[in-house]
Amino acid sequence: MTNPKAAMLVIGDEILSGRTRDSNMHYLAKELTRAGIDLAEARVVSDDEQAIIDAVRALSATYEHVFTSGGIGPTHDDITAECVAAAFDMPIGIRDDARALLEAHYARTGAELNEARLRMARIPDGAALIDNPVSIAPGFTIENVHVMAGVPAVFEAMVASVLPSLSGGDPLLSQSMRIERGEGEIAGPLSDLAKAFPDLSIGSYPFVSNGIYGANIVIRGHDGAQVDAAMTRLSELFG
Amino acid sequence: MTNPKAAMLVIGDEILSGRTRDSNMHYLAKELTRAGIDLAEARVVSDDEQAIIDAVRALSATYEHVFTSGGIGPTHDDITAECVAAAFDMPIGIRDDARALLEAHYARTGAELNEARLRMARIPDGAALIDNPVSIAPGFTIENVHVMAGVPAVFEAMVASVLPSLSGGDPLLSQSMRIERGEGEIAGPLSDLAKAFPDLSIGSYPFVSNGIYGANIVIRGHDGAQVDAAMTRLSELFG
Repeated sequence: MTNPKAAMLVIGDEILSGRTRDSNMHYLAKELTRAGIDLAEARVVSDDEQAIIDAVRALSATYEHVFTSGGIGPTHDDITAECVAAAFDMPIGIRDDARALLEAHYARTGAELNEARLRMARIPDGAALIDNPVSIAPGFTIENVHVMAGVPAVFEAMVASVLPSLSGGDPLLSQSMRIERGEGEIAGPLSDLAKAFPDLSIGSYPFVSNGIYGANIVIRGHDGAQVDAAMTRLSELFG
Repeated sequence: MTNPKAAMLVIGDEILSGRTRDSNMHYLAKELTRAGIDLAEARVVSDDEQAIIDAVRALSATYEHVFTSGGIGPTHDDITAECVAAAFDMPIGIRDDARALLEAHYARTGAELNEARLRMARIPDGAALIDNPVSIAPGFTIENVHVMAGVPAVFEAMVASVLPSLSGGDPLLSQSMRIERGEGEIAGPLSDLAKAFPDLSIGSYPFVSNGIYGANIVIRGHDGAQVDAAMTRLSELFG
């Protein structure tokens, strides 16, 4: 069986300027791997309307699921919700269900639900809300696109809300072995191993550490017995 | 003056599976910002031939510079050089200048320049070599695409080799202020500030820290006097 393929779209000038180091991509990658969904591509675009619309359309048409991160807060530079709505030619406005969540939240905390905060209730028509247990303002799913916040704590909570409802395939199993020899020495036998196990992905990830050249060899696949067999062979070669 | 726009292409299954957390994007983003080149987009694709070719073509056609990371080592899963050559319909093979670098290096270290290591001398016709002071095997520049290694120490050394030769625009200046108030409270005045300074980029990056909701406001622009004026106004509003 083939796993569903997904893409991620990170939205935000702060990542591309180097001000902030994104952590959501790494988090989502690990969670999707565990859920049996293959993250096949990720993109980072700036807070630019056309760039966001184009990326949402391209990724949504290519992959089964698209996960976005960033740009759904109350400030003027938060334009993701409008852009996703525009990508699907759907109307967007303050929606009663989202407004009710915010009203209840701000009534509890005593803060004012002002015009800016109310922006967080802008949800495209027909979208399903994504629960945000951390700071209440919801994300949303429209078609195959899951729109989530950029703040890592909120993003991670929203991923936990969304993932159980998506049907993944078999989890991807992996085993790895650290080899303290230059890649150039192990590349030949490794290539033969990859040919002997065409259903597995065999990756070589080189490192230089304290002057030692080495590589972590990672064997991935959906069939545990095959992964075991390939690891045994790898140990015989380089163990 | 408008800064040149650039894109980055990170190549590697290990990033998308969550096994490795990419650090090259964050490094390049900071270096480009300092050099006055705007990183406008970044993509991560897997070790898939067509995905790499398509991304190289799309980014190369859209941006002035494209920087790639990963997939130029000696192992079977290192297919970036072939894919970049294919993207430009250029022949690729072992090139004498790259081979000479490797021969000298392995003669010094006493290791064998075997078939796998020789793969690292595959350079497309017409490409210019990128110096690799860390582990010798060179990167290359073909058209507007700079092809570099994925190992961070090597990637960073190659960026240092390439960047001085590219003509950047004015460095992007930035100042920031931490405000310990929810974004919802500051969003209105912030939006007015953004309208008053249309040439600046004013970003709000929310955080939740020990139960405190706040935002870092970052003002970016190429005109230092304007950035100063906007920061002064920001301090008056929220200082």
